[in-house]
Amino acid sequence: MALPNRVTLCDVGPRDGLQNEKQVVAAADKVELIHRLQAAGIRRLEATSFVSPKWVPQMGDNAEVMAGIQRRSDVAYAVLVPNAKGLEAALPTRPDEIVVFTAASEAFAQKNINCSIAESIERFAPVVAQAKAAGIKVRAALSCAIGCPYEGDIHPDKVDAVAAQLAAIGVDHIGVSDTIGVGTPRRIQQALERALKHFPLHEVSGHYHDTYGQALANVYASLEVGVSTFDASVGGLGGCPYAKGATGNVATEDVVFMLNGLGIETGVDLDGLVDAAAFISGVLGRPPVSRVARAVLAKRQA
Amino acid sequence: MALPNRVTLCDVGPRDGLQNEKQVVAAADKVELIHRLQAAGIRRLEATSFVSPKWVPQMGDNAEVMAGIQRRSDVAYAVLVPNAKGLEAALPTRPDEIVVFTAASEAFAQKNINCSIAESIERFAPVVAQAKAAGIKVRAALSCAIGCPYEGDIHPDKVDAVAAQLAAIGVDHIGVSDTIGVGTPRRIQQALERALKHFPLHEVSGHYHDTYGQALANVYASLEVGVSTFDASVGGLGGCPYAKGATGNVATEDVVFMLNGLGIETGVDLDGLVDAAAFISGVLGRPPVSRVARAVLAKRQA
Repeated sequence: MALPNRVTLCDVGPRDGLQNEKQVVAAADKVELIHRLQAAGIRRLEATSFVSPKWVPQMGDNAEVMAGIQRRSDVAYAVLVPNAKGLEAALPTRPDEIVVFTAASEAFAQKNINCSIAESIERFAPVVAQAKAAGIKVRAALSCAIGCPYEGDIHPDKVDAVAAQLAAIGVDHIGVSDTIGVGTPRRIQQALERALKHFPLHEVSGHYHDTYGQALANVYASLEVGVSTFDASVGGLGGCPYAKGATGNVATEDVVFMLNGLGIETGVDLDGLVDAAAFISGVLGRPPVSRVARAVLAKRQA
Repeated sequence: MALPNRVTLCDVGPRDGLQNEKQVVAAADKVELIHRLQAAGIRRLEATSFVSPKWVPQMGDNAEVMAGIQRRSDVAYAVLVPNAKGLEAALPTRPDEIVVFTAASEAFAQKNINCSIAESIERFAPVVAQAKAAGIKVRAALSCAIGCPYEGDIHPDKVDAVAAQLAAIGVDHIGVSDTIGVGTPRRIQQALERALKHFPLHEVSGHYHDTYGQALANVYASLEVGVSTFDASVGGLGGCPYAKGATGNVATEDVVFMLNGLGIETGVDLDGLVDAAAFISGVLGRPPVSRVARAVLAKRQA
């Protein structure tokens, strides 16, 4: 079974990662992190979010961050947008992509976004239309595609159904998100296969959390079904709001190490990425969670 | 591609794990750890080593540990044996299995066991014969089967050659060891396939270190070539002598979590395993390295 020759990584550290860190990070440090990521070869990243600072104070500097980035024409800058108001705030900052989000779990949708899955799709339909009219690509994050902290296991049929609805409102890309990190390789493949019924191969990505250490195995299993786009977070930034003290997004370095070993191109320089991880970990005053960053930094010290 | 229905896990925490922990652990705590592991369903474990206490002070209590275990007839107790003298010391403690070791890297053999690979095999031949005459199963650990801290990449042909020599002296089982954790899925599969030329499927095991976070992906890749026996270390005990601060053996809990998700039987109770990890981490005064143990313990606290 041939694996893809090339993988595109979207570093979500500046948004999904930092959002789950308690310590508020200065806009200048976020911008510096983004610069380091793009210097290391990251060509797609989630820069910030336009959720109300009432809910997510860490992202209250969204416009400042977007204005501070020295943009590269070959990098796609994505921002998270919760609703029409968020899009309105985001548009003047000229994102290349917006990320909208819903869930494959009804209970999670209710608790996390205060509406049913169907209502969330309905609410996003005009947002998607407006973004696309402005020439902005729309990605959807499908949370709890494998398991839910309230409902437990999520059947792949649920992924199928919501993916169909997202495709129907014109979303370009779907991120199959294992929000609580309970996925294992075959379950991940099943969820991806359902998403692939509604989106082309290059418009389906995997977004895996390493809460239970499964993320890299899940990336490998995803490659086996042809998926070649993944979210990851530099330094393994972020945590899990459903298990304090647990690990967050899979670390970008760990993914790159595996892909290098598999002979799969990413365009990302591992040493530069470890530098970026060391930088943001220094800002947060703790070592990176990433196994690769820890090992590489330990070797550099020796 | 069907994966195996059942996997046998050998918990190497009491030996390979603790050996790489600086803090000397009391024999009573080691025995308690072994009791907890077998209570959790572990049926094969590396209990201690009969290397000279001059080299490995942590294992100086080997006979005391072996005498202290309340043995179960359905558990195989293995001990590491470096030479004839080690076997002599081990025999009265009635191990079910001995583990001998060599490397797929000449440089590593020279630095680690002070002889060439060929000399190590020659030296082990009478040890193997004597153990087998005493009705003891002999496993060989093949260190640096993927990469070496001194030589870098190790070609699979090297695994092929050394596996052939180990089979020739009557070794029953080979553990393909990624000592420094640099393996990635396809490289692991290649190394296993070479070992499988000389040993039957159920007598080839994977021994992976999580230094670069690759271990679980490597276990999954191993299942794909039919391998169904793995070493793992409760709590992710142990470190990497070649990168201080880096991670050691793959955590048994993380492996069990993945196998549970894949519907593969292990006979191991995850909660009991997490209890054992919490116990030994308490003794060591630090949280477990295992992602699963951390997440489960965090959830229990919530």
